[in-house]
Amino acid sequence: MSDDERWIDAALALAGRGLGRTSPNPPVGCLIVKDGRVVGRGWTQPGGRPHAEAAALAQAAADARGATAYVTLEPCAHVSARGAACADLLVEAGLARVVVAMVDPDLRTAGKGIERLRATGVEVVVGIAEARAKAAIAGFLMRQAEGRPFVTLKLALSIDGRIAMADGSSRWITGDAARAHAHLLRARSDLIVVGRGTLEADDPALDVRLPGLEDRAPRAAVMSRSLAAIPAHLRLAARDPLLIDSPAAIDGLEAINDVLVEGGAGVAAAFLAADRVDRLVIYRAPIVIGAGQAGIGDIGLTDLAAAHGRWRPIESRTLGNDRLEVYERTR
Amino acid sequence: MSDDERWIDAALALAGRGLGRTSPNPPVGCLIVKDGRVVGRGWTQPGGRPHAEAAALAQAAADARGATAYVTLEPCAHVSARGAACADLLVEAGLARVVVAMVDPDLRTAGKGIERLRATGVEVVVGIAEARAKAAIAGFLMRQAEGRPFVTLKLALSIDGRIAMADGSSRWITGDAARAHAHLLRARSDLIVVGRGTLEADDPALDVRLPGLEDRAPRAAVMSRSLAAIPAHLRLAARDPLLIDSPAAIDGLEAINDVLVEGGAGVAAAFLAADRVDRLVIYRAPIVIGAGQAGIGDIGLTDLAAAHGRWRPIESRTLGNDRLEVYERTR
Repeated sequence: MSDDERWIDAALALAGRGLGRTSPNPPVGCLIVKDGRVVGRGWTQPGGRPHAEAAALAQAAADARGATAYVTLEPCAHVSARGAACADLLVEAGLARVVVAMVDPDLRTAGKGIERLRATGVEVVVGIAEARAKAAIAGFLMRQAEGRPFVTLKLALSIDGRIAMADGSSRWITGDAARAHAHLLRARSDLIVVGRGTLEADDPALDVRLPGLEDRAPRAAVMSRSLAAIPAHLRLAARDPLLIDSPAAIDGLEAINDVLVEGGAGVAAAFLAADRVDRLVIYRAPIVIGAGQAGIGDIGLTDLAAAHGRWRPIESRTLGNDRLEVYERTR
Repeated sequence: MSDDERWIDAALALAGRGLGRTSPNPPVGCLIVKDGRVVGRGWTQPGGRPHAEAAALAQAAADARGATAYVTLEPCAHVSARGAACADLLVEAGLARVVVAMVDPDLRTAGKGIERLRATGVEVVVGIAEARAKAAIAGFLMRQAEGRPFVTLKLALSIDGRIAMADGSSRWITGDAARAHAHLLRARSDLIVVGRGTLEADDPALDVRLPGLEDRAPRAAVMSRSLAAIPAHLRLAARDPLLIDSPAAIDGLEAINDVLVEGGAGVAAAFLAADRVDRLVIYRAPIVIGAGQAGIGDIGLTDLAAAHGRWRPIESRTLGNDRLEVYERTR
């Protein structure tokens, strides 16, 4: 791995801090490095501003002159009421070199930021750790490309695919480490979707129970075919959730790039049947439940062959006593 | 890893060739090494005789004098109508040193083989790679300790724990590599158990479809609560299977150390509910089926907490497009 790649990875780690709070903007990270030493660190702030570069430049101050900036997304070229264009800020600060992980697909920038830097003599390198940079802003990219959010379906399952016993008990299928990981997924999402049954039976708070991240609970949405009135105490517990009647209802929501669907089986099946799941995150507990509630309901599959080739395993690792399995859609 | 351990591992690989064909004897491997060169290789032959040591000594002939023998189980000390005691054979052949992976729990030997070697001046080392040696003869050890066979439950499951679509289709959940691995499990078992539904719907041949191992299909047993007559063509296809009405029915079967339970859901559940499963082998396909047939039926679980701590994950690796998950019982 080259030095540039290592610095971009460090900038991606910074970018991750904003995930779930920067919509409609993507979470970006920026590191300013001079003589092998970090002189400025920044990431997109809640609501999307200030941008990562502005934050890092403010920290670097005069040290930015002659330094290298590592940014996980092309610096913006457009001036907005909310701030100057980052490409201009980098030029003004006297950066000698800018390493860009990926070009911004936003048409207001889309290469113009890089052009502006090069036009003033700044050396620009583009495409370092691009795949990881893209994965880090999958929600933003999905919104740009398809006009809908990136959807993660998360399920805690037994070996035999159960999410609960027959009587509905599901505390607990997985252990502390898996549950903490699931709460981190929440913190990194813009919207959590659950079914009405899950809201009632399971976890009406839908909050983030991680030290230091308690304020990161995203907006909640409750999906119900009938949209029957949800009792006031549940609405209160879930911080006045949105009510939706289908997976497609989330497409048009503003400032929602990353959606986490938490089940139950009916909601999971509805999103899968509508082909609206981009990533499956399975926490697999080393237990057998037997007769119990299935994790995923009817997805309308009529042919076993059609089930194949849709999911690519991209991660499998232990998480406490459980195993994390991550799959990404292939098309 | 020491040289002794490496040679014992090689002997364990030889032992594996006999697995599924040596009952009631355990599958043993033996390597005779002189000046760093293998001069004899042997493994327990079908039906349990000749023993591994006799086979290796026959190959080594005069080269055995002054050599080291590596055996995965203590050489037997008892003379039988079927052959001399291996400890005596090793002494007669003039072995200088014998490395033994583990002591034989069979009371007819149980340390006497080692004593006899040492009494004649042969150097004996005991306990090399013992854990792996024990795992290799788990069925024999279970029979010795508990008077019943070692039971492996094998299931091919989707991410969501289905073994078939709602209409029963299960061709195929997993790919070629997983299916070949499952056939190897068959070849290494003394008995395959299936439910009547599985026999009818799925795979009445219960054979081993691997090049060179076609003759290794073990005896089959069909479990059915009613033991209703099974049609003649199915009996024929399954090579005149045993009929059993419960998991306990396999305990008293002669020469059956390793049993492979292949499902369906009812048989899997019956073995789990009876606490008769020692190892779970899951072939996990990267597919979602949704509404379909559960892999495991009612196991009588009444409390989610009781499901925990029973299974220890011991292996997880890719197998073609699928993932092999192996769990061992913890108690």
